[in-house]
Amino acid sequence: MPKRDNRRVVTGVTLGVSDHTRDCEVLMSIPQQAQRPASGTAGPSPARQSASPVPDDRAPDAVADVVVVGGGGGGLPTALFSRWLGNEVVLLEKADELGGTARKAAFWYWVPNNEPMRAAGIVDDEADFLRYVARLARPTAYDPDSPTLGLTRWEYDMCRAIYESASPAAELLAEKGALEYRHCPDVPDYWSEIPEDKTPTGRVLVPAGARESMSDGGLVGVASMGAAARRDGVDIRTGHRAQRLVVRDGAVVGVEATTADGRTHRIAARKAVVFATGGFTHDVDLRRNFLHAPVYGGCAATTNEGDFLAIAGPVGAQLRNMNYAWMCPIPLERAVARDPGLIGMFSVAGDSMVFVDKTGHRVVNEKLQYNELAQRFFTYDGEKGEYPHLVLIQIWDQRSQDHSASDEYGRLIVPPGTDDSHVIRGETLDELAEAIAARLDRYKGVTGGLTLAPDFADNLRRTIDRFNAFAERGVDEDFHRGEKPIQFVFNGPVREEPDRANPTMWPISGQGPYYAALVTGGTLDTKGGPRTNPDGQVLDDTGAPVPGLYGVGNCVASASGQAYWAGGATLGPIIAFAHRAAQAADREPVREPSTQLTTA
Amino acid sequence: MPKRDNRRVVTGVTLGVSDHTRDCEVLMSIPQQAQRPASGTAGPSPARQSASPVPDDRAPDAVADVVVVGGGGGGLPTALFSRWLGNEVVLLEKADELGGTARKAAFWYWVPNNEPMRAAGIVDDEADFLRYVARLARPTAYDPDSPTLGLTRWEYDMCRAIYESASPAAELLAEKGALEYRHCPDVPDYWSEIPEDKTPTGRVLVPAGARESMSDGGLVGVASMGAAARRDGVDIRTGHRAQRLVVRDGAVVGVEATTADGRTHRIAARKAVVFATGGFTHDVDLRRNFLHAPVYGGCAATTNEGDFLAIAGPVGAQLRNMNYAWMCPIPLERAVARDPGLIGMFSVAGDSMVFVDKTGHRVVNEKLQYNELAQRFFTYDGEKGEYPHLVLIQIWDQRSQDHSASDEYGRLIVPPGTDDSHVIRGETLDELAEAIAARLDRYKGVTGGLTLAPDFADNLRRTIDRFNAFAERGVDEDFHRGEKPIQFVFNGPVREEPDRANPTMWPISGQGPYYAALVTGGTLDTKGGPRTNPDGQVLDDTGAPVPGLYGVGNCVASASGQAYWAGGATLGPIIAFAHRAAQAADREPVREPSTQLTTA
Repeated sequence: MPKRDNRRVVTGVTLGVSDHTRDCEVLMSIPQQAQRPASGTAGPSPARQSASPVPDDRAPDAVADVVVVGGGGGGLPTALFSRWLGNEVVLLEKADELGGTARKAAFWYWVPNNEPMRAAGIVDDEADFLRYVARLARPTAYDPDSPTLGLTRWEYDMCRAIYESASPAAELLAEKGALEYRHCPDVPDYWSEIPEDKTPTGRVLVPAGARESMSDGGLVGVASMGAAARRDGVDIRTGHRAQRLVVRDGAVVGVEATTADGRTHRIAARKAVVFATGGFTHDVDLRRNFLHAPVYGGCAATTNEGDFLAIAGPVGAQLRNMNYAWMCPIPLERAVARDPGLIGMFSVAGDSMVFVDKTGHRVVNEKLQYNELAQRFFTYDGEKGEYPHLVLIQIWDQRSQDHSASDEYGRLIVPPGTDDSHVIRGETLDELAEAIAARLDRYKGVTGGLTLAPDFADNLRRTIDRFNAFAERGVDEDFHRGEKPIQFVFNGPVREEPDRANPTMWPISGQGPYYAALVTGGTLDTKGGPRTNPDGQVLDDTGAPVPGLYGVGNCVASASGQAYWAGGATLGPIIAFAHRAAQAADREPVREPSTQLTTA
Repeated sequence: MPKRDNRRVVTGVTLGVSDHTRDCEVLMSIPQQAQRPASGTAGPSPARQSASPVPDDRAPDAVADVVVVGGGGGGLPTALFSRWLGNEVVLLEKADELGGTARKAAFWYWVPNNEPMRAAGIVDDEADFLRYVARLARPTAYDPDSPTLGLTRWEYDMCRAIYESASPAAELLAEKGALEYRHCPDVPDYWSEIPEDKTPTGRVLVPAGARESMSDGGLVGVASMGAAARRDGVDIRTGHRAQRLVVRDGAVVGVEATTADGRTHRIAARKAVVFATGGFTHDVDLRRNFLHAPVYGGCAATTNEGDFLAIAGPVGAQLRNMNYAWMCPIPLERAVARDPGLIGMFSVAGDSMVFVDKTGHRVVNEKLQYNELAQRFFTYDGEKGEYPHLVLIQIWDQRSQDHSASDEYGRLIVPPGTDDSHVIRGETLDELAEAIAARLDRYKGVTGGLTLAPDFADNLRRTIDRFNAFAERGVDEDFHRGEKPIQFVFNGPVREEPDRANPTMWPISGQGPYYAALVTGGTLDTKGGPRTNPDGQVLDDTGAPVPGLYGVGNCVASASGQAYWAGGATLGPIIAFAHRAAQAADREPVREPSTQLTTA
């Protein structure tokens, strides 16, 4: 498997901090010009119908050993692994093209104890790995003296499965030429500084063909796996929305999907149906009624509407981890517009830049890793019955505009010629405040009537003075900006300044023009769904597998609890479970359809 | 309907603040000596079995028109309303006695536009009511200009149903002698100060026979409704745990329940099965995987384990409002011990008293209404990956011990002779700090290793100095203690002091002994479950009612979102929906069991 030497990727805290090292940045995202949906993906998919299962009472339209539902970061590897075990595989994708959310990602994948680590003699011990993941998944329950470290037995077993299978899965994908990778030996975990992280770097892989900045990793990875699937004979059917299961004697023996022309297609599965259909980011009602915070959508594929929740319920599936999501800040205006090209703010750009709340005060470390930064929008004020930080305002000056603009990674400081409809301008801070107030007024119907405090501009001036004093010394006494390794990785391009201690900060100019944008919290995608065992089998209310039904990825329950362990902590485990599910599905007894294939 | 004049109940901000007005306190709770479970209630109920529905293929053990599952604050009125419409009713209760969580409550019920209000000429307009409930249910979505005020259509319709039916339901229960009430004209809503509350007082009723302090309202209400149910011929069967539905042609035609002797009882329902089985407070796994905060249990009946979630799933029920709960602070140690007598801290006692965090600082208004106070424990620190306020420490002096001790309302300052195992003591603040550290050490396995900061005692001294200065002036500059009407209602007994402006505060003595107790956040019970329409019919994934299946109370989705509108905002709406469900169930077509009743 060809790998490039990319030891330059992250060699220390100086990376990504100057115009000259932009090629070294390692962030999950894609260029904003590529964020607009490809033709068809944002179009209407077939409407949702009843999810009530149907009996195996008519001839199927197609038969396969394994039917995989969803053609993104979970479905593609599942289909490949199944096919390589000798199964006939049909893959159904709701959108008109493959890729799902993975297309929009940089496609890091977090693989503990991976092959390049082992080759380099880096020890990544299972027990240490489990302590790290348990500490972060359930911080209030973590107990190093418990046999399961404070996790439930199910969570613990799932985490062990990640450790065991992520590397073999990644190796097999590489060996078969479906997903070659390069290793990022210096990329730190998102919590590399905590004592439980005994292996703070080295677990991240990215698609080998991705550009040096890696921002197109998802496009590369999806194209590569899609090509392998076609090469190896996976029967790929896009524009097919799975609607319901076909059941016989308590086993799942197929699935019905509909297409835009109104037809219903029944696909029989001799061994298993594997769902990999993503989370429920784009179902407003599900978001409101399950997530721990009132988020405004997110950057998952717009087809991620939680279909599997309704489909799996009637066979007894029990939901888990429905309250948490993979989170990131998002631009408020694109989220409200339901822009299918919305990309999460995986990197908050600029050094002469702050976030302030509606009163003009800073409330957070703007360079905090994105999942944790996103939580801050949802602080609840029980005295006033409101979320005072629901919308924060990113403020920057001409310096950051000139040196930190970028069309990658969801940054809001964008270069000339790109869509900057989210940017608010003012020659002075007073003008800027007025323009922010006017912009917020447009959104009062979806923010609980959020308005700027009357003394916003005065407070903003004081905030900038205080921040500037911190920036001069390189020490953020209030929010510790730039104190952890991961924050430099996510700093984005900034103007080079000789010998400064903290490249995440620089004083904001006393001179306009000034710029602003509205920011809130959102998801990459959600983490909840039916509980599966470590082999991906969907479990019923007694904990027994539903014969023939599997789930992989964000459509099923993640054992990560509330944690975002590292970059690629989404796709690494997903690939591991795709491998396990494919192996288990392969071992299922063959259930031939009770009626012959229709020849119509 | 006999009503007592209780205008003294809450006549102003002086209530509940002196030893002499203790009889006037109006708080949801029961005396701690009554918190220990009655024999049987905490014993093991029949074990959970598969919830997979069974076909109507054998003779039932009993037949009724309406089968009500659950004999608490939702089930008892549903059974009564159904019976009064002429139906044969069987009521199945999992515990060995009736009452559920309602037994532990003061049984306020919040009834908008109630009869005594109308009689007194108090206007409680529907449109104003809806703005109040919408503003609080979904604070980030509230929009006074939206046709549904920012609620979903379903939430809006459910709130209208509360307004329409709570009063007729309360009147009918009173007329029939099942639940006579007295009106609390002066009790304020929990958000009486917000501009949306046009009717800040007058919506609360309590059982007429409750003592003046109302603390036994639940015992009285349950006894009264239970007696009426027996009097009027409801067939009450305790010790029966519903396990699964009996279905025929897509309709629910009965339920199977098991008893401690291992027998399965099939009860056929000609018209409907109505679940009123409470929430999932006592299922740790469900709490972890659904609630918006990592709470430590709560004061719901210990039988509230979310049974209906698994039972309703196979017929297509869709869950809503699974993330929120009716919340309150709870004593950490009783929650961890799973004490069935645990009572929520509906009143935080004492004036010379503060809550501090592990660093010795105050972080919250200790007299905030309980649902909002409980949120504060779950502030997340994204820099450290922890919940820094997960456990707070209530600190008080001998003055509060002498004048604020009480065995009611979940207060932690208890009189001599009551169980005070939760109380930590020290002659000096240093001694106290040492004792607190030792107590916390016992719980490190369930608190993520929470320990006191090394400078806890020093900070505590400074905190007390600052608090004492506030108390002397009666103004809490940090957290606004004692600034809202509801905070005086919940203040509890305090030593009378002439002419003080703010009875919620008094300086903490410079002289020991000192006392402390560990506090965290919990639930009364949860708010989520299958979605029903305003008639209580459980809806499937297409929004269509599942024929014959109803739900009422905390086992189904509440449209209250995250709000705790007022005292009794649990039971008032529950009684309204009990009335509506009983009426709709009465109109169901009769579905005779397909096999004759067994005579065995």
